[in-house]
Amino acid sequence: MIDYIRDGAEIYRRSFATIRAEARLDGLDPVLERVVVRMIHACGMVDLVDDIAASDGFGAAGERALRAGVPILCDTSMVASGVTRSRLPAGNDVVCTLSDPSVRGLAAELGTTRTAAALELWRELLPGSVVVVGNAPTALFRLLELVEDGVAPPAAVIGIPVGFIGAAESKAALAEHPAALEHVVVHGRRGGSAMAAAAVNALASAAE
Amino acid sequence: MIDYIRDGAEIYRRSFATIRAEARLDGLDPVLERVVVRMIHACGMVDLVDDIAASDGFGAAGERALRAGVPILCDTSMVASGVTRSRLPAGNDVVCTLSDPSVRGLAAELGTTRTAAALELWRELLPGSVVVVGNAPTALFRLLELVEDGVAPPAAVIGIPVGFIGAAESKAALAEHPAALEHVVVHGRRGGSAMAAAAVNALASAAE
Repeated sequence: MIDYIRDGAEIYRRSFATIRAEARLDGLDPVLERVVVRMIHACGMVDLVDDIAASDGFGAAGERALRAGVPILCDTSMVASGVTRSRLPAGNDVVCTLSDPSVRGLAAELGTTRTAAALELWRELLPGSVVVVGNAPTALFRLLELVEDGVAPPAAVIGIPVGFIGAAESKAALAEHPAALEHVVVHGRRGGSAMAAAAVNALASAAE
Repeated sequence: MIDYIRDGAEIYRRSFATIRAEARLDGLDPVLERVVVRMIHACGMVDLVDDIAASDGFGAAGERALRAGVPILCDTSMVASGVTRSRLPAGNDVVCTLSDPSVRGLAAELGTTRTAAALELWRELLPGSVVVVGNAPTALFRLLELVEDGVAPPAAVIGIPVGFIGAAESKAALAEHPAALEHVVVHGRRGGSAMAAAAVNALASAAE
């Protein structure tokens, strides 16, 4: 038998205690603190907090929207798959439209990526929703374009695309956008579906 | 209209070019180079390569096994969801047993986490398979225990659990294990399902 901790609850407890001991979390409101801790838990890097930025109302707006039962709109199935259904306060729908059969044609028509084109199928669901982008910068840019086009905005945006081309720019565009969407971002190249799903899971429930 | 690159193929091309320009990839065999590039692509960090270690035969063994049609055994549904089915060379089964109804009882019986207990349902599939652990250190430890118990080993192990309690230790245990499993790991706390799925996707196909 190898010697390691097998008690899942104890692993969680010690993990969160380690994060709180090492990460600079002072000054964060309680909901955002919860979100940041769980994002760090998902990536193993306590310095992630240095790149995280959120609008003042993000935590309250996101939490309130989820409790009211709004849908959670995800850019990829990996993000959707990472949302823990039992944590959702109102059996919220978790939606990913990327594999809809119409998306390939829409992408060609709009001259954009499939991930961005998939947002066309969000138009009815978008107002008041919680949006989670964990992968594609083009999805985050497209969200801003939809809002500029006059679609009523989501209640909160978790904007954490990852990568080398457009990711940092898309997150800066969200953070600085005149529509002043409630948001959390990870500035720079870091991000990804695990972190994004972790942020939803933290917003959804205070349970650790 | 916001100004950004909308051509998915061009985004991929520039992303991989950026990674190859910035990351220290010399000395890696061609398959491992592909795996490392795609893992970096999934997390946005070119210094990830400094923490990646693989056995000499990992790339060839993993590629050969996938071409032969072995199943891909994943610790979480998020990893399974991140495997791009169209890249798989032989329509390989992608298996995650974590949500099987028997797992909760097995975990109580074995005194371990659900993620580790889920490996009990891998016993028949394990010999010659490709194992992917992107989340739970206890799953990786449990894999080593199954091999110590005499279960025939997988062909290759992608061992990339993330986090603060047991993650680094479980990856060190895999890398140093006397059974000498073919493996790739990310030493330290970093890891996660996105990176793990990216490693599978790179092993599965040379297409970028």
